[in-house]
Amino acid sequence: MNMTRRNFIQSVGAVAGVEAVHRTMQALGLSGVSEAHGAPLDLPLGSGQGKSVAILGAGVSGMTAAYELSKAGYRCTVLEATGRAGGRNLTARGGDVIREIDSRQSVDFDHQDHMYANLGPARIPYHHRTILGYCKEFGVELEVFTNDNRAALFHNRERFGGKPVVARQVRTDVRGYIAELLAKAVGGNALDSELTAEDKERILDMLVRYGDLKEPDRLYKGSRRGGFRRERIHEGLKAGDVNDPLDFSELLRSDFWRYKLHYSDSLNQNPTLFQPVGGMDAIVKAFEKRVGRFIRYRSVVKEIRKTSQGVRIVYRAAGQDADDALDADFAICSIPAPVLKDIPNDFSTETQATIASITFVPAVKIAFQTRRRFWEEEQAIYGGMSWTDQDITQIWYPPYGYHRHKGILMGAYIWGQKSGQRFTRMTPRERLQAAIAEGEHIHPGYAAEIESGVSRAWVKTPFQKGAWPRSRHKSPEALQKPDGAIYFAGDQTTGLPGWQEGAVLAAHAVVNAISERVMAK
Amino acid sequence: MNMTRRNFIQSVGAVAGVEAVHRTMQALGLSGVSEAHGAPLDLPLGSGQGKSVAILGAGVSGMTAAYELSKAGYRCTVLEATGRAGGRNLTARGGDVIREIDSRQSVDFDHQDHMYANLGPARIPYHHRTILGYCKEFGVELEVFTNDNRAALFHNRERFGGKPVVARQVRTDVRGYIAELLAKAVGGNALDSELTAEDKERILDMLVRYGDLKEPDRLYKGSRRGGFRRERIHEGLKAGDVNDPLDFSELLRSDFWRYKLHYSDSLNQNPTLFQPVGGMDAIVKAFEKRVGRFIRYRSVVKEIRKTSQGVRIVYRAAGQDADDALDADFAICSIPAPVLKDIPNDFSTETQATIASITFVPAVKIAFQTRRRFWEEEQAIYGGMSWTDQDITQIWYPPYGYHRHKGILMGAYIWGQKSGQRFTRMTPRERLQAAIAEGEHIHPGYAAEIESGVSRAWVKTPFQKGAWPRSRHKSPEALQKPDGAIYFAGDQTTGLPGWQEGAVLAAHAVVNAISERVMAK
Repeated sequence: MNMTRRNFIQSVGAVAGVEAVHRTMQALGLSGVSEAHGAPLDLPLGSGQGKSVAILGAGVSGMTAAYELSKAGYRCTVLEATGRAGGRNLTARGGDVIREIDSRQSVDFDHQDHMYANLGPARIPYHHRTILGYCKEFGVELEVFTNDNRAALFHNRERFGGKPVVARQVRTDVRGYIAELLAKAVGGNALDSELTAEDKERILDMLVRYGDLKEPDRLYKGSRRGGFRRERIHEGLKAGDVNDPLDFSELLRSDFWRYKLHYSDSLNQNPTLFQPVGGMDAIVKAFEKRVGRFIRYRSVVKEIRKTSQGVRIVYRAAGQDADDALDADFAICSIPAPVLKDIPNDFSTETQATIASITFVPAVKIAFQTRRRFWEEEQAIYGGMSWTDQDITQIWYPPYGYHRHKGILMGAYIWGQKSGQRFTRMTPRERLQAAIAEGEHIHPGYAAEIESGVSRAWVKTPFQKGAWPRSRHKSPEALQKPDGAIYFAGDQTTGLPGWQEGAVLAAHAVVNAISERVMAK
Repeated sequence: MNMTRRNFIQSVGAVAGVEAVHRTMQALGLSGVSEAHGAPLDLPLGSGQGKSVAILGAGVSGMTAAYELSKAGYRCTVLEATGRAGGRNLTARGGDVIREIDSRQSVDFDHQDHMYANLGPARIPYHHRTILGYCKEFGVELEVFTNDNRAALFHNRERFGGKPVVARQVRTDVRGYIAELLAKAVGGNALDSELTAEDKERILDMLVRYGDLKEPDRLYKGSRRGGFRRERIHEGLKAGDVNDPLDFSELLRSDFWRYKLHYSDSLNQNPTLFQPVGGMDAIVKAFEKRVGRFIRYRSVVKEIRKTSQGVRIVYRAAGQDADDALDADFAICSIPAPVLKDIPNDFSTETQATIASITFVPAVKIAFQTRRRFWEEEQAIYGGMSWTDQDITQIWYPPYGYHRHKGILMGAYIWGQKSGQRFTRMTPRERLQAAIAEGEHIHPGYAAEIESGVSRAWVKTPFQKGAWPRSRHKSPEALQKPDGAIYFAGDQTTGLPGWQEGAVLAAHAVVNAISERVMAK
């Protein structure tokens, strides 16, 4: 049988049209998913009428605004304080220099395509449709980023003798014990008032499957989901005994379940997640290629003023003896609040209060080059992350360059207030030493594997002064409205702080608002 | 600060040696993980002493044996019934011909690097160290395979009005309800005999986090883990209301939890999983490059005989009028049991009985080329799989070629006895029509998206007659011992039926056994 495409389609019978597909998607409540992705901002050509826009900050938000506005005929000028675009989207490679207010690190990584560290954003969830839409539009190639790796480790200093336990077992055993307890309660008629007789039977059946309980007593006695003992994890030539379950009381005394166990279930952390092949800054480069000509690098904003025509931005370009001024019809300000609050401005009292109220998280990332990928070789850990109750919080195994010789490990990702401040205060060398000492408890022999390292404390980063706004999911209303001709952008104005999706959504909102204002005139 | 590698290592203080790493790994019970991977078979050079081995079948198991034995100085001849190596490791691309005993399909896929379907094995779990070891050794590039995609769908014809529901919500809500019920039981003192007062407090706290319950009543009222209503899944510019939870009774009446919900928790299905970039047959090509010169293609085994010197294999080469005979010191037989049982042989009664007792699963895969990646565009589904209670069982979204224009969807992966037989009996055209009709219930408008398709019913596949041995995790002991000079290989002799890891482990076991026998002489 040779079935060509044409006679195949003819043969399948009732063929629904594209419209039908969309209608049915809507009926299923799924159409919203495609909103941002399917319909990127599309201002009418020439609708900008040559209006001028001063964009403050060449991060992802500022460049998105510049890209969309310039396409529509606006004259954009982007003032960027540093010598590079991207803002917190920062990928470190060999030869790079990482500057903080009181230190300067030269990155000493090997020059190979998999030897990099994303020191800012590192993942893109599947439902961040707008940034993914730009990746698609710009041809930024994506690969999967793994949060949930069952081979990775959970570590509490005071639990299980201070030894790390494997995620596969923690997840399996916690679920098994919960299922067993609930089965006892339901089977013992303790929840008869909550359940119909029919549901009761079904839930008992469900719990046996959910927790892999042993019939007829519905007890949890370990599960092959947790892996086999001794020689290998899996069944091999001949299945052996499954691992003994971890002690339930000890699990309850651990901090694993406080949020670490559910981390990859949270909305922005569950699969499928992506990363650009070769480094997160592939997104920066793609934007910069399109709007780089509008960017004035090393141009530090000194004042943000309202004028009768619109705005005046006073700035100092590198190497200049005096300030320059940029007059424009509108300004889009994506300067992070901790920096913005100290720039002289004509903002309203309400705007100033909002900006002053936004505090940023003192996140720190530390990346190490290792002489070999010991986590893959010794422990079959491919990507994902281990958790510890030490300050380093996490060790990330690079979800790229699998099976290559060396690797770049994220040796710490810290976002707690105290731990972040502690590491921020350290010198770069002290940070590496502290992260290695803590990592040694998760991977004994760790120090010997490490060849070099680099750290990034976002609070000490010039023109950033922090990683992302602390209050999650609370949008600062005042920054979603313009203050005169000045609009605010960046993830800090959204319900997605710290996410590039927030940055581009904020830019879209501002671009739409400016366009509506201009076209209404 | 410019920290070079050398002074960095000097600075980190106590540096443990490599030996210490290994010792500590052993202490942690982790050393077994690296066994196969770290120490691939390594027979002494020349230890084969020119002994001859007839290998029956150029699948992954047979080629592994040929590779390892020939390196050690054995003279290997591989008899392969078909014109290609790889056996069930089969990747379909445009221009390929898929033959079954009563049909012939020409694959009509576009010729692009992401337009392929793995019709046999499609994933490699992280702990399948031996096949991963070959991937590393041969430079087979890997990328992540996704089982658990929270954007994918669960579908029951009789539940939720027959409409698919999103995995993210099913997982979140099932867990929420279980946590709520157990919290009621624990809080109502129903499990006081099971828990200490201290554990009781901890478990209540845990359940609130586990299920995202609302305090103070510890009720489940939906969770942001399940996503937000209306415009977009995530928080966006301003978080809205979380989705209403799915009805618990309806969830209990569904089949979601019977195993589908826990599928990606099973040992061989949990993350991280891999696939070779460009198609699973990259593994076949890598082996074939190394042992292809030993393979006699289109050579069908007719008899397997014991001789005083070892074995005689009678076979018929394509285009020949008469049978040939191959005499060898040993034979390694990886011919699938459903085929092997009908080949005249000198096996012992026990061996014959074992072979006759092995029945294979009638699995069927159906792949479609689509005119666009509607699952990505419309529903933000990137890789992973949707589940249905219809015969097609699953729809797989390709975990490769993300954001490209077209895609190859796995429109059915069937392994049930009845459903597999039903689809096996159909003509290829009927299979495609039936799979499209069922897929239409999961993705309305499906038919209009499909350009061409191909199916593979393994029971009707010449020289295979089935997908993998039915009884999981039960190793057929009799086939793990030689019968005279005849050794048995293939995944069918292991606790990993249907997995390439089983195929290579079986080959290693046989190679070791032959080597020990030869070197003992």
